[in-house]
Order: sequence, then structure tokens, then C-alpha cells
Amino acid sequence: MRIQFDPINLYAGMVGESHGLTPAELRIARPEALAALRDFQAAARQDVYGFPHLPFQKSTATSILDYAEEVRGTYDTVCLVGIGGSALGAWALDCALRGPHPVQGRFSKKFPRLVILDNVDPTFILDALQSMDPRKTLVCVAAKSGATAETVSAFLIVRDWLENELGAKKARKRIVAVTSEHRGDLKEMADSEGYTTFYLPENVGGRFSVLSAIGMAPAALIGLDIKKVLAGAAEMTGLCWKKDLKVNHALNAALHHYLILTRRGKSVQVAFPYSNRLWGTAFWFRQLWAESLGKALDKDGKQVNAGQTPVAALGTTDQHSQVQLYMEGPNDKVFTFWGVDKFENAGGIPKVKTGRAAFDYLGGQTLAKLLNAERKATAAALTAQQRPNCAFTLDRVDEVHVGAFLQLMEFETAFMGQLLNIDAFNQEGVELGKKFTFGLMGRRGYEEFSQQYKAYEQKRSKIVVR
Amino acid sequence: MRIQFDPINLYAGMVGESHGLTPAELRIARPEALAALRDFQAAARQDVYGFPHLPFQKSTATSILDYAEEVRGTYDTVCLVGIGGSALGAWALDCALRGPHPVQGRFSKKFPRLVILDNVDPTFILDALQSMDPRKTLVCVAAKSGATAETVSAFLIVRDWLENELGAKKARKRIVAVTSEHRGDLKEMADSEGYTTFYLPENVGGRFSVLSAIGMAPAALIGLDIKKVLAGAAEMTGLCWKKDLKVNHALNAALHHYLILTRRGKSVQVAFPYSNRLWGTAFWFRQLWAESLGKALDKDGKQVNAGQTPVAALGTTDQHSQVQLYMEGPNDKVFTFWGVDKFENAGGIPKVKTGRAAFDYLGGQTLAKLLNAERKATAAALTAQQRPNCAFTLDRVDEVHVGAFLQLMEFETAFMGQLLNIDAFNQEGVELGKKFTFGLMGRRGYEEFSQQYKAYEQKRSKIVVR
Repeated sequence: MRIQFDPINLYAGMVGESHGLTPAELRIARPEALAALRDFQAAARQDVYGFPHLPFQKSTATSILDYAEEVRGTYDTVCLVGIGGSALGAWALDCALRGPHPVQGRFSKKFPRLVILDNVDPTFILDALQSMDPRKTLVCVAAKSGATAETVSAFLIVRDWLENELGAKKARKRIVAVTSEHRGDLKEMADSEGYTTFYLPENVGGRFSVLSAIGMAPAALIGLDIKKVLAGAAEMTGLCWKKDLKVNHALNAALHHYLILTRRGKSVQVAFPYSNRLWGTAFWFRQLWAESLGKALDKDGKQVNAGQTPVAALGTTDQHSQVQLYMEGPNDKVFTFWGVDKFENAGGIPKVKTGRAAFDYLGGQTLAKLLNAERKATAAALTAQQRPNCAFTLDRVDEVHVGAFLQLMEFETAFMGQLLNIDAFNQEGVELGKKFTFGLMGRRGYEEFSQQYKAYEQKRSKIVVR
Repeated sequence: MRIQFDPINLYAGMVGESHGLTPAELRIARPEALAALRDFQAAARQDVYGFPHLPFQKSTATSILDYAEEVRGTYDTVCLVGIGGSALGAWALDCALRGPHPVQGRFSKKFPRLVILDNVDPTFILDALQSMDPRKTLVCVAAKSGATAETVSAFLIVRDWLENELGAKKARKRIVAVTSEHRGDLKEMADSEGYTTFYLPENVGGRFSVLSAIGMAPAALIGLDIKKVLAGAAEMTGLCWKKDLKVNHALNAALHHYLILTRRGKSVQVAFPYSNRLWGTAFWFRQLWAESLGKALDKDGKQVNAGQTPVAALGTTDQHSQVQLYMEGPNDKVFTFWGVDKFENAGGIPKVKTGRAAFDYLGGQTLAKLLNAERKATAAALTAQQRPNCAFTLDRVDEVHVGAFLQLMEFETAFMGQLLNIDAFNQEGVELGKKFTFGLMGRRGYEEFSQQYKAYEQKRSKIVVR
């Protein structure tokens, strides 16, 4: 397993002192990084945070694989009902290891398709139902608390759709639940209806749960080798506890991203994979980074409004969409390229002699060479414009490297939270919107928020716009 | 056709004076908006900019539809080879009018799938080839200049793949080219090999080209009703020339976005559709806004580094990913909700009596109600946190409204360019990266950039990171 981190284009020597870091700044901040490592490790050892332990929970993986073996060949589609952390990890794995839609090819019982119901758009849900056959679909419903309105609504519809075709008794055998072991409405429902159930440890939050049953159950059900994914993550976990910044890329990247955010004000981080297979991972990362670090208060209760806006961009595609802005717009971004060194097939471009300059120089070369030349060229061009950038490079995109990379990102995020002195593991900010929704949907106990919403609408009606 | 713009939550009365606009600011700036309209209209009348005229070019639409009729039923896949403006418009239309992948359902000769090759990742291209049958694939290659390295490379591979199966002569009959009428390597290749060819007007740039043959040819080939799309766009065009800001939503939205960017420093715009069908449109918009407005110099040659970073977020999905940051992180964003009023089927949630509070209040309601309650709740919650936000609302997502909305966005972008005093129609910033790529790929004439790249690598090797 080989993943590198290259921070050189973040330095003043490459992008100037207004936008780049000085070696002295790094030297001074290094003890902060080591303190972050120490404090986070102490908390993880006391089981405050569970994600570092997930790659080592062999019994969960074994029970998932046993179940997957048992049902194999009885479905051509896995319908995952979940949202946020209960959806993005599975998407990241499906995209990285099976390819992005719509080029995954025709699905079959040997090659089950993953359909993720992560929204309540009625057209989307009905399109999805029409695209699936209830007799060939295995439903996996994932929610930590089990009270998420979106997941509950979509699940009630999918459950009904299954029951109408199979009858209630058979339908229950085609539903897998992943939820909290000790509490929650989904857990109760799963118990009373007898679904096969896998559990998420209490000390693992949604966005850090990809290596728990939340990500591993759907991954195993579509036929991915989750043992290899976990092995890569386990190896990375070992590196993430090291004090040597040359080896601990998670800590080193956190330190650099912390400084470029707080000392140079780069308020946007562009995650820039040059690989369609890593596109899902970029969206998974977007949640991890945004929801963990976007915090009003620091640990001392001081208002800080911390956070960095993550943006997912795809190379080379977004060179033809976003790079004009990245080169010439406000210099408020840091770019993190995600490169891939090796491809199973480099994609030979046919030799042609058309006599046309724009065609003939490409003939006989490979797509892999072009893709990586464009990545390097884009980094060089951004550097020439004093736009700080850095790069992770994966040796290849396979189970081991993807598992390792996911774990690396989680550790980096945890370290970044420590450095910013914020709690990276809560998400209080989403509560108000949920409460207004409950109020608007007439859920008992939320009448106060229904009233507050009405007052807001009244205030709106008095704004005069001329 | 009914599309509304609601700016109320941008006002100080809702989000406070630090983050919201005052009615006086709007009043003072209104003449600027009217001048922007006048100047842009004058330039468009002189054919400097072509996109406002595209909905009225009936002959292009007719010839595309004639061709689509001729080949209908002979393919189950349209393979579009193009990148940036040559890909995003077709994706936006496919997603909006046929649904997003992977829930589009099984494709057939009556329901051809659109596969867009908009990258040179070798794994992606090879996955795509494996997912298509060369005997049932119609290839559409789209590039204004025809010199785009990514499009040329992917096209040479796809052309070879077709020829190996069909022979050169038959393969040529299965290739459609969309390019400039008067110049370029693709135009020459199309002429010499005898491809069916449609043309893009010279005064229409890639990101403004969705209503030209660039977007309309693939749309018609997958069976969309492009006449209705163009009719919606034509109706919107009429509104976009009006001086009345209550009617001209493009101008009104541009004025508001201009003020919230320049007077309140909201450097990020989150395009926040509450509709999976509009997800492709959000990515299309991302190019339009970023590439048009991200400019180093204004029209007087003054360094301004203008632009606003567009971010695509999907409601409700991203409430569980990005909203924590949006609520509590830096107050540096403006949110533009894209709502949909009506759905063909509202998506009834089955009535259940499970005795569980989190389940039973939802039974008997509809997904459409929940989706729109969540949109309104999120807007209210952001407003309570003094985060300025506004909303476009489409009556429904159909051909007419999508055509109208695309045109509205293009006009808004053009007006925004006028207000910012920048050229919204060039993209000089991407040239340096292209030149480095040409240098790295050994294209003749770019030796200088190959040398520059080597000097950059040498400089990198001297940076000491301890």
C-alpha cells in the first residue's frame, strides 16, 4: 500500500509569502500537531471515538460476509435506503471499486447494482422503484438513530412496494437493517419485524462510519472484497498513530491544511481527484470535512465560526469548467489533488496520420499519460498563479488503497478538529432545520417550531422589495 | 411557463445589516442593472453574443430532428464525446428530463441511454466501452475548435472501437460531429470522413451553447422533445429583455447576486436544487458561473480577480452533509434554492401504525410535501442564522421549464458580467495549463512550455520541507 502526500506547492518558495507557508511557520506549529495526535490518541484509547478501531472489528465483517454468502445470487439490485453518512460511504466504495454510473455496465445476479435512495424527491423515488424488480431486490436500510425523516419515508414506501409483491412475511426476509444496537425506532422496528440486523458502534458518527456495517454491509452485498478494504484501512491506521510527519500523512496534511486555512485564509478546499473512480469519495469527503469542521463554537465555548468549504472537482473534466475561476478568481482556495499512479490498462490511443496537428501528436500515447500530464500541468499552472496546492497520490485504485485512503481522510479530519480546537464529532447546526421540518409536517411535540415558522413567514411578508 | 425569483431572505430585515441588503442599496444600484441590460442588449443585437438568438434558430432544430427521425431505432446508446460546455448541457437535459443515473431504468432502442465521455481517465473510458455495444451505439463528438486534447483522445479510441467492429465505411455513418462551421481540425476530419455534421454559431461559447446543436443534437438523439425545450427558452428570452425587475428575473437575480457579492462579500454561491432531476443542471450552472465570472482583469484592464465560487448542493441530501457548515461555519455564502412546486406524482407515504413516533406522523403524507417542507425549513433555519438566501421556483420540471431555466441562468450570468464590468465570454485563464499539457505530451510548437515545466520541477526539488 502506497499513498503519498506532497505539500511542496503550499510553500512560499513556490507561491510567494502572501499565499504560501514558510518553513519557519511549519517548525513553530509542529508541536501543535504532535499535541493533536497525543490528545486524539488518548481519547480514542478511552473509546470516546470509535472510527480508528473499525478496521480491526473482524467479527462484524465476518457476520456480514456470512450473510452475504447466504443470500448471494438471489438479487440483481441492492437498494440502500439511507442519507448522509449512511449513504455516502457505500457510494464511495461502489464508485471506486465498480465504476461510476452510467458506465458500470449491465447488472445481474452476479453483478448486483447499488441503488441508493438518499433523497425524498418523489420523482427520484418513483424512478428508482420503476428501475428495480421487487423479486430481485435486497433492501438495506441504514440509519443510526432510525428517526431520520427522509430515510423513514423512503423506507416506508420501499417496504410497502416489497410487501405488495412478496407479501409481508417474505418481504421481511429481504430487508437488512443497519442501526444502533441499543436504541432507536429503526432498531425496534427491525426487532419486531425480524429483519437481519447489523449494528453500528455508539461511538462512531455517521460520517466516520464507512468502515462499520453502515458501509461494509452494502459493499459486501454488491460483492466487494471488504476484507481487503479493511486491511488497507488497518495498515493506514498504524501509520496515523506515528509521530513522524514523513510517515503520518494524515497528521502532516492536517497541519498543512490547518496553517493554510488559519494563517493564509484559504477558506475553500478543492478536493480534485484525477480519477472518475474517486468521484464518489470526493462527495464522501465533502461531508466529512464540512460537517466535522463547520462549527460555531470552539471547545472553550468561544464563537469562532470555524470551517473550510469543501468543493469537489474532477480532473480533467473540471479543467473545462472550474479552472478558469481557480486561476483568475479570488485567491481564496487551497487545492488538494488526488492522483493515481497506475492504471490496470493505460488506454492506448490509436496511432493515426490525419495530417492534423491537434490529432496526430496524441496517437500512440496513452490516456494514463495524458491524464497525469494534465494533473501535473494544472498544478504547475496554479502554482505559477500563486495558488497554493498539494497532492495525495494513490499507487492505484483498488480495495486496499481505497480503504487506506478513507481512513487517512478520517484521521486527517480528526486531527484538523484538534488543531482548530473544535469538536469534530457533533453536528448541532442541523437541528433547527430538522425541527422546522417536524413542525411543518405536524409531528407531535414540535408545535413550537410550527409557530416559529409561521412568525418567520409573517416577517417575510412585511419585507418591502421595490 | 412559470418561474419565480424570491429575494426576500437577502434583505437586512431578515438577516441583519451585516449580511443583508437594504432597500436603499437596491434603489441606488437599480440604474446599474438597467445599464447592464441596455449594453448587453445592444451587443446581442449586433451579434457579438449569440446565445439569446439560439431559441429562434428553427432550421438547426429542424435538421437535427430530421436526422434523429432517420436514425431512430438503430441504437440503444448515444455516446457523446465532449468535455466542459460540450458535455454539461446534454447531461443537464438528460438528467432533468429522463432522470439521474442509476435509476433511469433499463435502456433500449426506444429509450436510448446517454453515455458521456468527458474525461480521459483510462479506466472510465474502458468501463464505458465495455458497457456499450458498437453495433447499437451512435457516436456524437462535440468540440467547438476540435483541438481539445481530451475530446480528440477519447474520440480516436471510440472511432477505432467502432471501426474494428463495423469497418471504416460503416463506422463513419454512425458518427455525428458538432463543431464550428468554418474552421478547426474536427470540422476538417468530419468533412474528409463524411460524418453527419451540425454546426455551432461562432458567436456562441461552449458554456452558452446548450441550446445550440451542441446540446440539442444529443438531446434529440435520446428522444427528448427539443422543440419544447426551445419554446420555453424563447419565452424566457422575451422576459429577459424587459426592464421591469418584477418580470425580468434574470436581471433581478443578477442585481441581487451582484450586491450580495460586492457589498457583503459572499464569495461562495451555493446552488441548492431540491430535485434530483436538476442535479445535472447545477453542474452545468457551475461551469457557467465560474468560467464566466472568474476573471483576473476587468474590462478596463484593472486587476480585480473577480468571481464567486459556485457550489452544487442537493436538497434534501446535502442537509445531511453540508448544512452543518452552512449554518455554523464562516458566513461567506449566499444560498440560491431551486425549488419545484409540482410533481406528476407526489409520492404517497403509506399509512402505518407502528406505534413509533418517528414513523407514524409521516404515514399518509407525501414525499412532495416533505421535500418542500424541508426546503422551506432549511431556508428558515439559514435565515435565523443570518445567512442570506434566495430562491428560484419552477412550477414543474418539464421540457418547457428546463429550457426556460437554462436561458434564465445564461442571461443572469451575462448581466452579472456587465455589472462586474468583466468579460463574461472569454476564458484566458485555462490556457497556461493547456500549454503545459501540450509541452508534456510532446506536441510540436510547445517546446517552450516543456522547458518551463522542467524549470518548475527543478524549483520544486529545491524546496526544503522539514
